[in-house]
Amino acid sequence: MDLAEAIKTLTGVSTATLTSQLSKRGLNKVFMKGVRPLSASQPRFAGEAYTVRMIPAREDLGTYETLRSPDNPARKAIEHCPAGKVLVIDARGVTEAAVGGDILFARLQVRGVAGLVTDGGVRDAEEVRALGLPVQCAGPAAPASIGAHFAVGLDEPVACGGVAVMPGDVLVGDGDGVVVIPRKLVAEVARDGAEQERLERFLQQKVRGGASIVGVYPPNEATLAEYKTWKG
Amino acid sequence: MDLAEAIKTLTGVSTATLTSQLSKRGLNKVFMKGVRPLSASQPRFAGEAYTVRMIPAREDLGTYETLRSPDNPARKAIEHCPAGKVLVIDARGVTEAAVGGDILFARLQVRGVAGLVTDGGVRDAEEVRALGLPVQCAGPAAPASIGAHFAVGLDEPVACGGVAVMPGDVLVGDGDGVVVIPRKLVAEVARDGAEQERLERFLQQKVRGGASIVGVYPPNEATLAEYKTWKG
Amino acid sequence: MDLAEAIKTLTGVSTATLTSQLSKRGLNKVFMKGVRPLSASQPRFAGEAYTVRMIPAREDLGTYETLRSPDNPARKAIEHCPAGKVLVIDARGVTEAAVGGDILFARLQVRGVAGLVTDGGVRDAEEVRALGLPVQCAGPAAPASIGAHFAVGLDEPVACGGVAVMPGDVLVGDGDGVVVIPRKLVAEVARDGAEQERLERFLQQKVRGGASIVGVYPPNEATLAEYKTWKG
Amino acid sequence: MDLAEAIKTLTGVSTATLTSQLSKRGLNKVFMKGVRPLSASQPRFAGEAYTVRMIPAREDLGTYETLRSPDNPARKAIEHCPAGKVLVIDARGVTEAAVGGDILFARLQVRGVAGLVTDGGVRDAEEVRALGLPVQCAGPAAPASIGAHFAVGLDEPVACGGVAVMPGDVLVGDGDGVVVIPRKLVAEVARDGAEQERLERFLQQKVRGGASIVGVYPPNEATLAEYKTWKG
Amino acid sequence: MDLAEAIKTLTGVSTATLTSQLSKRGLNKVFMKGVRPLSASQPRFAGEAYTVRMIPAREDLGTYETLRSPDNPARKAIEHCPAGKVLVIDARGVTEAAVGGDILFARLQVRGVAGLVTDGGVRDAEEVRALGLPVQCAGPAAPASIGAHFAVGLDEPVACGGVAVMPGDVLVGDGDGVVVIPRKLVAEVARDGAEQERLERFLQQKVRGGASIVGVYPPNEATLAEYKTWKG
Amino acid sequence: MDLAEAIKTLTGVSTATLTSQLSKRGLNKVFMKGVRPLSASQPRFAGEAYTVRMIPAREDLGTYETLRSPDNPARKAIEHCPAGKVLVIDARGVTEAAVGGDILFARLQVRGVAGLVTDGGVRDAEEVRALGLPVQCAGPAAPASIGAHFAVGLDEPVACGGVAVMPGDVLVGDGDGVVVIPRKLVAEVARDGAEQERLERFLQQKVRGGASIVGVYPPNEATLAEYKTWKG
Repeated sequence: MDLAEAIKTLTGVSTATLTSQLSKRGLNKVFMKGVRPLSASQPRFAGEAYTVRMIPAREDLGTYETLRSPDNPARKAIEHCPAGKVLVIDARGVTEAAVGGDILFARLQVRGVAGLVTDGGVRDAEEVRALGLPVQCAGPAAPASIGAHFAVGLDEPVACGGVAVMPGDVLVGDGDGVVVIPRKLVAEVARDGAEQERLERFLQQKVRGGASIVGVYPPNEATLAEYKTWKG
Repeated sequence: MDLAEAIKTLTGVSTATLTSQLSKRGLNKVFMKGVRPLSASQPRFAGEAYTVRMIPAREDLGTYETLRSPDNPARKAIEHCPAGKVLVIDARGVTEAAVGGDILFARLQVRGVAGLVTDGGVRDAEEVRALGLPVQCAGPAAPASIGAHFAVGLDEPVACGGVAVMPGDVLVGDGDGVVVIPRKLVAEVARDGAEQERLERFLQQKVRGGASIVGVYPPNEATLAEYKTWKG
Repeated sequence: MDLAEAIKTLTGVSTATLTSQLSKRGLNKVFMKGVRPLSASQPRFAGEAYTVRMIPAREDLGTYETLRSPDNPARKAIEHCPAGKVLVIDARGVTEAAVGGDILFARLQVRGVAGLVTDGGVRDAEEVRALGLPVQCAGPAAPASIGAHFAVGLDEPVACGGVAVMPGDVLVGDGDGVVVIPRKLVAEVARDGAEQERLERFLQQKVRGGASIVGVYPPNEATLAEYKTWKG
Repeated sequence: MDLAEAIKTLTGVSTATLTSQLSKRGLNKVFMKGVRPLSASQPRFAGEAYTVRMIPAREDLGTYETLRSPDNPARKAIEHCPAGKVLVIDARGVTEAAVGGDILFARLQVRGVAGLVTDGGVRDAEEVRALGLPVQCAGPAAPASIGAHFAVGLDEPVACGGVAVMPGDVLVGDGDGVVVIPRKLVAEVARDGAEQERLERFLQQKVRGGASIVGVYPPNEATLAEYKTWKG
Repeated sequence: MDLAEAIKTLTGVSTATLTSQLSKRGLNKVFMKGVRPLSASQPRFAGEAYTVRMIPAREDLGTYETLRSPDNPARKAIEHCPAGKVLVIDARGVTEAAVGGDILFARLQVRGVAGLVTDGGVRDAEEVRALGLPVQCAGPAAPASIGAHFAVGLDEPVACGGVAVMPGDVLVGDGDGVVVIPRKLVAEVARDGAEQERLERFLQQKVRGGASIVGVYPPNEATLAEYKTWKG
Repeated sequence: MDLAEAIKTLTGVSTATLTSQLSKRGLNKVFMKGVRPLSASQPRFAGEAYTVRMIPAREDLGTYETLRSPDNPARKAIEHCPAGKVLVIDARGVTEAAVGGDILFARLQVRGVAGLVTDGGVRDAEEVRALGLPVQCAGPAAPASIGAHFAVGLDEPVACGGVAVMPGDVLVGDGDGVVVIPRKLVAEVARDGAEQERLERFLQQKVRGGASIVGVYPPNEATLAEYKTWKG
């Protein structure tokens, strides 16, 4: 499975399943804390990480002009994050200021960016929800990023929601939040995750039909045999 | 009023009213902190507590197999929590992992469990919301319980949301959260709570009709007399 | 622009825009932390602050009767907060108890109060959402204020959500939360905020139409000229 | 016992004993949270509360000059807090800025103030420790109060460490922290607290001598009789 | 190495070394959070865990008398925790109340208990420091346990400082805090930990003598050979 | 004043004075939160920042060997941080693991590094205190950095204690904590800070001698004239 195919597959696999797949491979530090969908109805997404690193604002670092200039990494990212990728903004878990608002995020959407992920806040939350771009963040916050953050890096290793994100890792977001899949595990996790989803759909159907979880979840040999027949 | 009737009555009494009734009886440590409805549209519920106690996971405690076996208290509870009761899972307020997900909770619903209450997270939140089972928790979290919790007890006294829960206490959940009613107070609190609700519906009607709260909320003698007539 | 006109204008200006306008004037401590809309569909609001100050409850301070009497500042405010103003309740960020519930807030709405703002909780959250009164708070909490708060002042300077609120300041609330505008800046901030909104609607339209943010957000001379023509 | 005598007595009674005495009288919201002695070797203290109330700083509230003027409540308190009283500064639990430093506190000490209590920080911590004035606070913090606080009231009811403080209440501080004793309970709590201390010294002596706590702590009739003889 | 010998060895091994030894064996959830030495000068300790489990206090659970009776698990533990063991009290991380004070802890010391560990507070902190009993806790807090805790279990699996503690596990405490060693790993961890300490003393000596850490920490073959000679 | 002289001067200026000097110049985001001296008796320090940036550990990032290799930025810094500079480790405020312990820090001291600053923990706290190297950190924590951190950068802009640190900025630490002085302000802040200290020593002397703070702190013309004479 190549990367594009894996990413496509991953949009149909839940973060619950993916954390389990990663846990089986010894990776337990992959789910972001304090990062959740801005809108209950936004679509799931998967894509490679493209990162922005921000440190705390300090009154002497840059002028208002340089901070809003297209060379500022946070602004540059809006035009340079490749279509299909996920823009990840390391905001150090600061919830009291936004990393951006409706105009910047509209541009991301027009450019085909797959989603926005940050452990900081988002302003113009109502308008951003209306955009349709999947946004995972710490929640709404009106104050602009300028008062809280100073962007210093583009596409570097960063922390987001207490998790390491390396450029090229794949992020998947759904109603539970965001999981980070290390690049070299993407293909196998996509494959095994999709299979786990299929199995769980079958098990869910049995359980809703009245089956006990004993022997079903987790499935024993008999259940697995039944599943094999079911999936044909 | 017997227990079944009291519980039925309690599904129509708000947790706001119940905390007030308990406060009048000197009980102020009864409302869970950090526990809220997973879905805005889920039904209210009331039922006796059936508890699971979990301590932190430790890498040497049990194998993956024993942890998912039907003898594990957390699994056993799924099949043994009696219909009509509320499954309460003491997750020590850990929000970064789930206590379960859509398959386990579908089983609870099929079995007629009245609701699920935990101060931990829940995975597959979108699917769980769709189930219809009332769930009160710390919010969505994808990682499985296995990485965070080790279940050690069934139907023991536990802590949940900073509140003591004794097996047999009655829990009521609504849009505000969850209140614990000590077993021996259930009947009188149900009776007086229902009466308070009736009175407040009357007062609410007056206030919406333009009455001042003075003499109305709290009601003076005249208002109480008027209420008596109203309720017939 | 007189105050009434300014307040009317402000109901159409987002808190994101207002924090930016205040930041340009050197005011960065104006957005409340931990205060958010109780309902996703409640209307925006703007109005002068009318405040209640509460300190922690202590078992010897007042009786149940005095606490619920119309002379208690928290009760008095319900009948005395002028129509069109915003009732602000300083609850010291205590999230585990309510500052009030559906009957008190129904009265506020009948009396034409513009909104309720508190860094404390709100009880009867489902019913309060149904009222339509805009409420910005720390979230639902069933326990009554009596167990947590003792009201000591009316229309005094207070803290709310970590921000200073002086009587007469104007508060604006929307989906992002609540901003405080010092009284003497209200007219100019309303005027410049409304103009910024108009400009941003134009820029947003360009961006959705495919324009890069470079030269557009922030706008360069050419874009500003284009805007001038657009607004006619 | 008059107030002066009661206060003198209270300097010899631990806050542990005092919280127990108050708890027996139904008062459990009397011990400050997050407030601890700045120095391990500072003396215990007791005295009437004299309060300063601060709200969050806002860039438009006062000039640098007015903020440091002798009419600013926070400055006025330094010269007006009566000798023998305890200066209590309500800093809303903000730990990242100081409420004052070595010069202001040296003045308090010279003027005979009994102690300083705040739920905010203290600057020049090393120098303040050297002064000898008992200081209970949230810990050291270098930034001046001017960036975080705006004083608005003198000798008003305030909150400190999550506890209500009314002017005239008596505060006692030791190695565990600070307890607030409502004015009207001061005499009886001083008397009973001193007696409890005496009894516990006796019990402590027995326990160190090898006695089991059974029958000793809490003491049974025989132990109480023995105590009576002991104290003569 | 038998258990007694292992425990004796462990009093000479730092918790830093022990967390490393356990990490090498795949155990990373073994160090308590928010638990620290009450006194800077208290001795290190090691011993088997003897546990008390407490849930939140509720006004209807027990009377003042039953709560202080010798049958209450928290009281029973004071007389029944075996000499040489460590009393571990699960206080759910509640820092605002004590789990006990100077008389109870004096009894523990007289009885030869090796130490007290809790994620709750301790009252009479000054007197407890003077006792000499090693105490690891969340810090001083004057209010008695009765207002916050209700003891429900003795020598059960518990949580403390976010870590699982099984009866019979060995706890070691020093200036960094407390580590839990699963019972079956005690002997090997004691042996390898002691050896690591010896090696690190040698490496520390080299570093203080001017050696680079390269090749020394971690040691390469040459350094290890040198160490072999050194230890003879 | 050249940099070396400024740094020398700064070792005699308190962080309280320095935050005031920076505040007068419009810089208020310069004092680290949650960073405090490890030892009460450690010397003050000042020096240029040399930084290490760490992101969260992830099980697939590097092996145990690469993580402890001299090429790992966190290890490299120990040998490459220039004498006289301050090693600053960005640990994202994670208090539950150490950034290093006694052997690494002994090497820093031997090499003449001026101090260690981190918003993470430190292991072997007792031994580190004995070294004499000034350490400002989040407190003791036994677990090694390997389980929590993955070092990714050397001498980059970082965040520490919620403050931006640029390589070459000067850090000063004392009993209150750590302040960051932007490089280009170092000379003037050193000069004016030293003068402020001298003035405050004079004012402190007056206050201890019985002067009111009115006219003295802040000083009026007369007091300033007196000071001029005093300093000669």
